[in-house]
Amino acid sequence: MGNSFGELFRITTWGESHGGGVGVVIDGCPPRLALTEKDLQPDLARRRPGQSRITTQRQETDAVRILSGTFEGKTLGTPISLLVENTDQRSEAYTEMQTKYRPSHADYTYDAKYGIRAWPGGGRTSARETIGRVAAGAIAKKILKKLFGVEVLACVQQVQKISAEINPDKFTLKQVEANIIRCPHKATAEKMIRLIDRTRKAGDSVGGVLLGVARGVPVGWGEPVFDRLEADLAKAMLSLPASKGFEIGSGFGGIAMKGSEHNDPFRMRGGKVRTTANRSGGVQGGISNGETIYFRTVFKPTATILQSQDTVSAAGKNVKLKARGRHDPCVLPRAVPMVEAMTALVLVDHALRHRAQNGK
Amino acid sequence: MGNSFGELFRITTWGESHGGGVGVVIDGCPPRLALTEKDLQPDLARRRPGQSRITTQRQETDAVRILSGTFEGKTLGTPISLLVENTDQRSEAYTEMQTKYRPSHADYTYDAKYGIRAWPGGGRTSARETIGRVAAGAIAKKILKKLFGVEVLACVQQVQKISAEINPDKFTLKQVEANIIRCPHKATAEKMIRLIDRTRKAGDSVGGVLLGVARGVPVGWGEPVFDRLEADLAKAMLSLPASKGFEIGSGFGGIAMKGSEHNDPFRMRGGKVRTTANRSGGVQGGISNGETIYFRTVFKPTATILQSQDTVSAAGKNVKLKARGRHDPCVLPRAVPMVEAMTALVLVDHALRHRAQNGK
Amino acid sequence: MGNSFGELFRITTWGESHGGGVGVVIDGCPPRLALTEKDLQPDLARRRPGQSRITTQRQETDAVRILSGTFEGKTLGTPISLLVENTDQRSEAYTEMQTKYRPSHADYTYDAKYGIRAWPGGGRTSARETIGRVAAGAIAKKILKKLFGVEVLACVQQVQKISAEINPDKFTLKQVEANIIRCPHKATAEKMIRLIDRTRKAGDSVGGVLLGVARGVPVGWGEPVFDRLEADLAKAMLSLPASKGFEIGSGFGGIAMKGSEHNDPFRMRGGKVRTTANRSGGVQGGISNGETIYFRTVFKPTATILQSQDTVSAAGKNVKLKARGRHDPCVLPRAVPMVEAMTALVLVDHALRHRAQNGK
Amino acid sequence: MGNSFGELFRITTWGESHGGGVGVVIDGCPPRLALTEKDLQPDLARRRPGQSRITTQRQETDAVRILSGTFEGKTLGTPISLLVENTDQRSEAYTEMQTKYRPSHADYTYDAKYGIRAWPGGGRTSARETIGRVAAGAIAKKILKKLFGVEVLACVQQVQKISAEINPDKFTLKQVEANIIRCPHKATAEKMIRLIDRTRKAGDSVGGVLLGVARGVPVGWGEPVFDRLEADLAKAMLSLPASKGFEIGSGFGGIAMKGSEHNDPFRMRGGKVRTTANRSGGVQGGISNGETIYFRTVFKPTATILQSQDTVSAAGKNVKLKARGRHDPCVLPRAVPMVEAMTALVLVDHALRHRAQNGK
Repeated sequence: MGNSFGELFRITTWGESHGGGVGVVIDGCPPRLALTEKDLQPDLARRRPGQSRITTQRQETDAVRILSGTFEGKTLGTPISLLVENTDQRSEAYTEMQTKYRPSHADYTYDAKYGIRAWPGGGRTSARETIGRVAAGAIAKKILKKLFGVEVLACVQQVQKISAEINPDKFTLKQVEANIIRCPHKATAEKMIRLIDRTRKAGDSVGGVLLGVARGVPVGWGEPVFDRLEADLAKAMLSLPASKGFEIGSGFGGIAMKGSEHNDPFRMRGGKVRTTANRSGGVQGGISNGETIYFRTVFKPTATILQSQDTVSAAGKNVKLKARGRHDPCVLPRAVPMVEAMTALVLVDHALRHRAQNGK
Repeated sequence: MGNSFGELFRITTWGESHGGGVGVVIDGCPPRLALTEKDLQPDLARRRPGQSRITTQRQETDAVRILSGTFEGKTLGTPISLLVENTDQRSEAYTEMQTKYRPSHADYTYDAKYGIRAWPGGGRTSARETIGRVAAGAIAKKILKKLFGVEVLACVQQVQKISAEINPDKFTLKQVEANIIRCPHKATAEKMIRLIDRTRKAGDSVGGVLLGVARGVPVGWGEPVFDRLEADLAKAMLSLPASKGFEIGSGFGGIAMKGSEHNDPFRMRGGKVRTTANRSGGVQGGISNGETIYFRTVFKPTATILQSQDTVSAAGKNVKLKARGRHDPCVLPRAVPMVEAMTALVLVDHALRHRAQNGK
Repeated sequence: MGNSFGELFRITTWGESHGGGVGVVIDGCPPRLALTEKDLQPDLARRRPGQSRITTQRQETDAVRILSGTFEGKTLGTPISLLVENTDQRSEAYTEMQTKYRPSHADYTYDAKYGIRAWPGGGRTSARETIGRVAAGAIAKKILKKLFGVEVLACVQQVQKISAEINPDKFTLKQVEANIIRCPHKATAEKMIRLIDRTRKAGDSVGGVLLGVARGVPVGWGEPVFDRLEADLAKAMLSLPASKGFEIGSGFGGIAMKGSEHNDPFRMRGGKVRTTANRSGGVQGGISNGETIYFRTVFKPTATILQSQDTVSAAGKNVKLKARGRHDPCVLPRAVPMVEAMTALVLVDHALRHRAQNGK
Repeated sequence: MGNSFGELFRITTWGESHGGGVGVVIDGCPPRLALTEKDLQPDLARRRPGQSRITTQRQETDAVRILSGTFEGKTLGTPISLLVENTDQRSEAYTEMQTKYRPSHADYTYDAKYGIRAWPGGGRTSARETIGRVAAGAIAKKILKKLFGVEVLACVQQVQKISAEINPDKFTLKQVEANIIRCPHKATAEKMIRLIDRTRKAGDSVGGVLLGVARGVPVGWGEPVFDRLEADLAKAMLSLPASKGFEIGSGFGGIAMKGSEHNDPFRMRGGKVRTTANRSGGVQGGISNGETIYFRTVFKPTATILQSQDTVSAAGKNVKLKARGRHDPCVLPRAVPMVEAMTALVLVDHALRHRAQNGK
């Protein structure tokens, strides 16, 4: 259970790191949308390992095939099935994982829950699972842009203690893609990269914070009471592996203020109801208010490191484990397309719900 | 849409602040559980306005009636319908709200979304909606305790910048209930109360952070990939009115560490696989690992204040709005039972899912 | 579980025959629809016991209250909670039911499933549960008529072996309501009533067939593959107590024909694609084709009879049971509004799904 | 939407007749079940075209691959993704279908609903979609047998007017598989086959009735109110292409009886509560009562025939259409594994729901 996300635009991901492949089925995509593999491959390239020296060096090409749901380059309104076959299957690199639980990984909890575990490459717990999300998210982003004029974008805002000031309304995809850490603030990006380089050489890892935004969302998306936009976004972000927190608008920082300082005043502007500040993060009462939606999500330092660690074996013995070979010193740049994908999936679902209720 | 929460233990809340009442229907409660109104009333008392000088002074008794789902004091396995009638309906206190949008409230977004709005008391956006959650949560807490030996508890950890050190494994309900701010650290509680008193007299408000814990959760609850425990908890918390963020375990603070510092080492203890630290917050890979689950959620300063604010009217004019009468300087102590309720609802749902898959 | 129906127009019924009352919560009703109790009471009157000599003589007034979801006579887009309090609670009439399982009732299966049973009046298995459906169905019918120009109607077509020829395109509500059996063919209705009168005096009961229709459904409603219109209608009908079968269009009778005889030829008529026969029953490939949707559902003879029957006791002894007092010789006329309600609930849900996908 | 079935054992099918393939994702399969392609291929062979002279002669091998969800021959508890690649893609055989709507097919309704249609082979409306169901059903049948001791079986009971007496408690898989029509009554089977042979040579088609049974279902499965076992079975059957009706137990025939004749008396037998007749069809109040569950579902005569028919073109002209080449004179024997699959999917879902609520 738990492998589906969304109500009206519903994705179901499947696949282990070692096996036939990984993929996703998307149910609820509107018909007559132009769609080919070329729409999906760019985001998969942003997600794939081996894209730069600061991420894991596993080589995966992640070529996606559309198996169903399109005809002559257009969506049919039927389920879209996407497949990425597994290729880099060096399971010998994981032999020690068969008998020892990696600290702060899911090896132990999977074993306890299911009584069985696909240990090579982490099986279902591998980040390869996010391939399906990113591919589906690319479709969701295209729908948002074409049908609703909404732009979804994410970037790396902070690595360890190195943080950039970023205006949610203004940074561009081009700026994000201009460097390998995907921080749109060039000088900060360079500092981040130097830190990661040092960490990588020590066989260690860092965490950080991503900023996600959605621009151009019309007033009225979001369903109170439980399916508030920010609630669904929070779930979406916390469903990403390694994420440990979420905040929207002023977030945890907002409590430094009193109510009189924190409230966003309304003013008419260009004939529209607007707010003169955006501490609400574009959402009020769970419903979009027409301002830019922005939020932050935190990723812990990657668990796999090349240092010896205390752990236990599946047989219940205290042992040492030292991962060998490749590790991922910083998952953040690869997480950028994941954050965009999950954001887009939440928004397109709410866009369709809004159409159901309002007929437009 | 969006008024239901949970899959196997599913609640549906309903009701506006002014109208016949508010309530909840609970579908999926196991049969043969002892249950009367007396099980529900204590948490409703912890939630209700007027309970102390530092919260809103509206007087609501919130007496709950069980309309269905029990027979001779035991649950039937059929839907439990709970009703709290509305009593304190002084809608004249809200007249100005009919024509002016309260800043950082949901008046404007509701109007834009639905084209109609129950303006007295905020209608569906009123915190009275949480009565249904708290009552259902009391049932969920009882199930967790009786059937699974799990204890759910929450408290106030921080008010504005005043913060308490609290050990998630150790604070007690008695400590929480010992003061009106519901912070188990007595000295800090007193500082918090003094701050709120000052703020209240200025007609202003404060926000803060709540800590939620679940103790005794067995290994194996939680459904990867999307319905991870932490993802469902994040959604649950962000679905509460005024909440702006969520973090589990080390959360946003965890990124100050490197992976080698952040990982939780495994060690055998008492014949069980345990971790010697708990930066994971009791969840790994979306699945409980047997350690205490703990998380923090932030509530912004209450939006209703007794000061003049810039806003717009429903007719599209720039106007001033100054709320009169009662306001809620600090919603945090009343949010404690809400956080407990939502936590318990998430956990009991996952407990039942686990039983479905594992037969126990 | 299992007390909700629908995805986008979702109802949740609750209540036992003896207890606080019965009711329903409706989530997903579009906003700004005129709605008061007067819209609901007529169908509840068609459903209630005691309405004529040929149904059960229990006296229930079934006065409904709208507890939430409307403001100044219009829907808010928030959940609509409806309550009918229980009044006629003569539980002593059911004393024998406490210890003996009524044949072909749900007493035994409930006891086995839940380990507890609200025996007075049948508890949750009472037909009072359908009050919530009928009230919600009245709202669904109103939405279909006002927003989509669709008319839903049902009638009694057959009682035991007495059957009427009825054209699905032509019979009217006025004809249906012209007699107590709700068969629009007057002469057949009289025969049916005479048969029921004889049966009633013998303390026995009859079953029969209802015809349900939906006129004016536009082309394109229905979701292949699993949520075909006919599949959802079949589930809706079989969810009614005492129903044992469903057929759409030619149904079981269609197999007397060869494919060349059974296919519905297409022809252009009035600029539209139409069929010159309607053995499909208005649905092709799970999707409405613009013709009248019609189907039949069968109700078994009512299980409660005033004759001595073999059964077993809760203690596991072979015993005799003879119901006393009132029984229901023919549930069919009261089932007419139930069939209409379930049909309308299915259709309004698909109407909203169609809007979600097509934006109109 | 609408391409998923089930709550706790949830399948999502995808695929068009011409494209990359067809498949299914199964979420909720219990872990540690032995499973390889060999478990799935036999039922796919019973479903595939070209298996005998009385069905369509298209040659499809339908070799299935398990892409995920198993490890070393055992299920992991993660999603099982199954793929059958498309091979026999002679789309030129369907050229006329590009511009003319086949009568009583879904060509027209799909075009109207989606504004686009994968015309080769019928696209998503092709019976190839049922491959995913049958493969998932084979897994469901295995779970039912291994974990719960339940046997699911179906057969052909009637072709046009030729009908067999079949005892739901007694016929065997071996008898069903003994002839190409899959009717366990040998003499009747021969008559059926002769009729189909004649019909086939005339380029025409026949319909008929299938009998489905589930033996050994324990007391207590099924969820009142809406998710009754018979309601979910009815939906399951009506979701199959070409099915037009469903009846459980006495079904439409039951109304010839009075209540005193129709009720199933309870008697103690072997220390258990049993019924001495089974007109209820093994279900009372939506819940299994421990007797054999049996039901019948009707399939209309196959729509594709080799005779000239009136229809309209996509351009809105009245035209003639005569299908060429291969047609399917009788879909019934191939529908047998489909009925078994859908039955098993319903039952395994309810088995898991029962475990959720009762812990066993």
